[in-house]
Amino acid sequence: MDLKKDILQQAANEARGLAIDAIHKSSSGHLGLPLGCAEIGAVLFGGGGLDFNPFNPRWVNRDRFILSAGHGSMFLYSWLHMAGYDVSLDDVKAFRSLHSKTPGHPEFGETPGVESTTGPLGQGVGNAVGMALSGKMLQARFNSEDNQPFNYHVVCLAGDGCLQEGVAREAVAFAGHQGLDNLILIYDSNEVTLDAQAEASQSEDVAALYTALGWDVQTIDGHDMDAISSALNNAKSGKDGKPHLIIAKTEIGRGISEVAGTWKAHGEGGAKFAAAARSSLGLPEETFYLSEQTLAHFQEVARAGKAKNTAWDATFDTWKTANPEAAAIIEAGYAKARPSADELFAVIPEFDPEKAVATRAAGGSAMTALVDKLPLMVSGSADLHGSTKNYLKGAGDDFTRENQAGRNIRFGIREHAMGAIVNGMGYEGLFLASGATFFTFSDYMRPSVRLSALAKLPVMWYWTHDSVGVGEDGPTHQPVEHVSACRAIPGLDMIRPGDVEETAGAIVAAMMKTDGPTGLVLSRQNLPVLSQIPVSIRREGVLKGGYVAIKETGDLDTIILSCGSELHIAIAAAEKLGDGIRVVSMPSMEIFERQSEEYKEEVLPPSIRKRIAVEAGVGQSWYKYIGLDGVMVGVEQFGLSAPGGQIYEALGLTPDKVVEAVQGL
Amino acid sequence: MDLKKDILQQAANEARGLAIDAIHKSSSGHLGLPLGCAEIGAVLFGGGGLDFNPFNPRWVNRDRFILSAGHGSMFLYSWLHMAGYDVSLDDVKAFRSLHSKTPGHPEFGETPGVESTTGPLGQGVGNAVGMALSGKMLQARFNSEDNQPFNYHVVCLAGDGCLQEGVAREAVAFAGHQGLDNLILIYDSNEVTLDAQAEASQSEDVAALYTALGWDVQTIDGHDMDAISSALNNAKSGKDGKPHLIIAKTEIGRGISEVAGTWKAHGEGGAKFAAAARSSLGLPEETFYLSEQTLAHFQEVARAGKAKNTAWDATFDTWKTANPEAAAIIEAGYAKARPSADELFAVIPEFDPEKAVATRAAGGSAMTALVDKLPLMVSGSADLHGSTKNYLKGAGDDFTRENQAGRNIRFGIREHAMGAIVNGMGYEGLFLASGATFFTFSDYMRPSVRLSALAKLPVMWYWTHDSVGVGEDGPTHQPVEHVSACRAIPGLDMIRPGDVEETAGAIVAAMMKTDGPTGLVLSRQNLPVLSQIPVSIRREGVLKGGYVAIKETGDLDTIILSCGSELHIAIAAAEKLGDGIRVVSMPSMEIFERQSEEYKEEVLPPSIRKRIAVEAGVGQSWYKYIGLDGVMVGVEQFGLSAPGGQIYEALGLTPDKVVEAVQGL
Repeated sequence: MDLKKDILQQAANEARGLAIDAIHKSSSGHLGLPLGCAEIGAVLFGGGGLDFNPFNPRWVNRDRFILSAGHGSMFLYSWLHMAGYDVSLDDVKAFRSLHSKTPGHPEFGETPGVESTTGPLGQGVGNAVGMALSGKMLQARFNSEDNQPFNYHVVCLAGDGCLQEGVAREAVAFAGHQGLDNLILIYDSNEVTLDAQAEASQSEDVAALYTALGWDVQTIDGHDMDAISSALNNAKSGKDGKPHLIIAKTEIGRGISEVAGTWKAHGEGGAKFAAAARSSLGLPEETFYLSEQTLAHFQEVARAGKAKNTAWDATFDTWKTANPEAAAIIEAGYAKARPSADELFAVIPEFDPEKAVATRAAGGSAMTALVDKLPLMVSGSADLHGSTKNYLKGAGDDFTRENQAGRNIRFGIREHAMGAIVNGMGYEGLFLASGATFFTFSDYMRPSVRLSALAKLPVMWYWTHDSVGVGEDGPTHQPVEHVSACRAIPGLDMIRPGDVEETAGAIVAAMMKTDGPTGLVLSRQNLPVLSQIPVSIRREGVLKGGYVAIKETGDLDTIILSCGSELHIAIAAAEKLGDGIRVVSMPSMEIFERQSEEYKEEVLPPSIRKRIAVEAGVGQSWYKYIGLDGVMVGVEQFGLSAPGGQIYEALGLTPDKVVEAVQGL
Repeated sequence: MDLKKDILQQAANEARGLAIDAIHKSSSGHLGLPLGCAEIGAVLFGGGGLDFNPFNPRWVNRDRFILSAGHGSMFLYSWLHMAGYDVSLDDVKAFRSLHSKTPGHPEFGETPGVESTTGPLGQGVGNAVGMALSGKMLQARFNSEDNQPFNYHVVCLAGDGCLQEGVAREAVAFAGHQGLDNLILIYDSNEVTLDAQAEASQSEDVAALYTALGWDVQTIDGHDMDAISSALNNAKSGKDGKPHLIIAKTEIGRGISEVAGTWKAHGEGGAKFAAAARSSLGLPEETFYLSEQTLAHFQEVARAGKAKNTAWDATFDTWKTANPEAAAIIEAGYAKARPSADELFAVIPEFDPEKAVATRAAGGSAMTALVDKLPLMVSGSADLHGSTKNYLKGAGDDFTRENQAGRNIRFGIREHAMGAIVNGMGYEGLFLASGATFFTFSDYMRPSVRLSALAKLPVMWYWTHDSVGVGEDGPTHQPVEHVSACRAIPGLDMIRPGDVEETAGAIVAAMMKTDGPTGLVLSRQNLPVLSQIPVSIRREGVLKGGYVAIKETGDLDTIILSCGSELHIAIAAAEKLGDGIRVVSMPSMEIFERQSEEYKEEVLPPSIRKRIAVEAGVGQSWYKYIGLDGVMVGVEQFGLSAPGGQIYEALGLTPDKVVEAVQGL
């Protein structure tokens, strides 16, 4: 469409006014981006830059917009309000107040039109790459020869802060390599960071950098709406496999002359000049002002968006009639409809009870068994498929730029981007995505793992090489503190299964979960199959988080809690100790805590105070179960480099040491 | 010197033999790099590529060599052995065995000549940048006009894995910006990653990428020793502010024809072809073989290195005579000699007892007070100096390429590289380095923090905005789980002080520690000064980790444990509750645990089981002190976006709620 530049410029200035007013009112927030990128916002939301329907924020084929520079949240809230999303002017006025729809940083699920939780810098760039990846998979797998309903773009707005971050650097390298030409990254290049002029911390040639990474690069004046529109159009029409970088030269804080163009414009510092700024922008004295012309224009844009959605629905319906099975898969996927646990368990064969297997391998087997049952399950590894063993066999091989229907993703040695990309797929909502690496490197992706929990994304983290059992690779590769550290993250279900069947239970638990992430912690070393416990008890026990694995044969005297690779050690100790000993398998504290009080007290009777926990890691997370009188048989130091069995001996992780500990209670 | 290529080629093949034999013997390890980079090793250690003295591995002006691709540890062990370091052939034979000098990945402190602990990919690149930064600071501050004893280079060998990692990408951007032309990065470009041919995960133009980042780039055949030597010489003579990348095209696993050049060569898979490989390399049947010629050559190299060291000592002595004060500073620095706690406290003025101050600000004040007393203290922030408040005033302003004597470092929005760079400074050993960011972003740097603890580096992490008290920025910026997650890391002293004087204690504790890192957790919000407790008790209490802040006035009935921003809430609750209540301030659990049993029992009498802990975070780390009967007044969910005071109310972090909890015991 032709740009209505007069109205859009007015809208841009009114958006500046909303940002000034909201940040002034709450005495906090960041003015720099909402003011500096106002013309970009006008073209995106009011000038055809984005395809969206504010009345149906989750329209499948909408363009996704991610504000990676989440501190500029008032940019998003202003434009979402103006564009007609369910974000009222009162919501805008409630910016940064308790339980508002307009929190300090954009939060997925709290505000219609917010596609991802951003603020931690660089994450949104990775999320955008993940959404673009989902978009490519969606196209490759579901568009038909004669009808291609799926063709959305992902547009991400990021500043210097995002692009300096390693997670973004990994993600843009991945995007360039994988040919995600449905991705448009707008770089708000304002020569300022929070702390200083950007020249204090960077001097690189950004255009050359992205060109070297296989990107298409355009450089424009970020206040020239024709240039913005034209760059977006160029980017949307580019189908040569290159993701698109638009370097938009902007003046940070434009509109507040006292600070514009300097680092002082980044935060709320400019708010004190509000009155003069509002006047120089041509705004009336009335705060939170939007003109009739602006409102009328955006109503028209909203109608056009709705019409586009309706037209698309017709295309989709035609496609759906021709492809009913594919349509059912997609509709179930976006609705997060999943098979029941019984249905999933039914297609995972029982494991050989005689054969010791590493739980990393058992997890891969269980996932492979589910490839047909869960057609939207996709999986990847950070250059460790051979070790993490989560390759989905029979699932379309590798995702590559030539085979975008592939369900196995090679993320490269980019754990952090893997986290943010998998999150992006979680936000997009169709695919059931997971990423794998060694558990010790969960640290590399931890900021993304945290966000998966905060945003309640149903993604799975497949972490292997779970403890000092890793052996010769030594302490750098032995995650002694990671289980406790991950259990500390609210909303993340950590599951550390003790044998093959518990692993099947863990995979099922993760695949059924729709309201948050699951972290699996799997062994490198082979573990005995605990066939003294019925298969169904082990599988379903995981769905309760903890269960009585070995019941005492006499009066209950002592409870040994354990999980993962140490569960068989706990059981061996119990066998030596005899009558009064109960072994509780506790693969997931988080799931256990969600059970009824009755169940929890049945498993862990409060009157029994003689308790021991056994885990090859720091004990921190176990004390709430063992208390001041209990004993932790754990590892309160870094590991060692030697064969795993020798390390277990050296650190006292043996049945005899557990027996001694119980006898010493 | 002229390259003795015949001997060096023989040495390279013998080094290949040592790697094959050690990895074959231990049935684990990585052959790819030791074989693919053997000629590089020969030129570095036997052909003048590095200045070193094996008899004095910590010679101040040696070139530093870091094997960032730490999985190729047999490269390092072979060449260190051959070069005459105290790494015997028996040590090489003990590769990857329990308590050997040759663990699976190189570990600082375990092996002479190992400059940093590597293995977690990308970290070594950041460490090298940090050492180069230290080198530049050393030169700028201590070389005199007429005598420049300090001019070492830092050489880092890294593969695709390291260079794909975000931490390395951040670090090389920083190095290019800061003009660290004393840094030489050798890229082992073998077109293979662990899992696959590298083309599966990357296709970027590396030379163009580094050029865009301000680096000098040379591309060579990594098996051509003349080319290697010449590239190193070019790099060492380049003084134009550009760090040096040498892209060395190598064949991974060269010498084992069955796997060479493919991903199968990366790990130990090639070891089964050992016999044929050894024969084709011209090695005798004797394993762990080194020829007389090789041994003789390296004895000569070692003598030359020793002579160089001796000649340098003379230069240094001349400089020392002319600059006795500077020399004393340097010698004390490398010896880790520090003033006593009393000396440090003496120069930190007491804070105004009436004025509520945020502990982030108090920490900055305390550090600034120590600027002269600790001339080697340097500090930086990840683009947050204005918020973290740790700028050292009166300490030479910013470090820049023009002002390399500056003691304040602008790391950019690169938390992870900041961690690895500060670690590099810690390894180098002269400067007392620290890095700052928001505590929630400790996750971004966590892999480096872990390594600082594993390698026992005396560095300081200055983390501010410690909890939900952050307020409006909301849950993305509120670190509810981070204190417990960091306390889980072995060897990391976490200190969360409760007011300004405890903060002074925390800074002193961190500055005195020579055998490991300290993490400070400081408030954004102002905190009341706890002047009801004497200054000396608060300051010195921190040095014990925990202490009785408010003693019960009657019979001891209940203990309230707390720290940080919640300590004053605990004290207010105790005041309401009266007689039998003791408040224990526990700023550092790790330091407390190192006190005598007597002291610990005096502070926390075992017979007192009514215990409550108060902290604005997940309670995980407190249960070992409160047990099954205790109550945790914490935050077991993500935070909220609102003014901080409202969040404390909403989450029940108030004196009244603590009183209720105590009464409910």
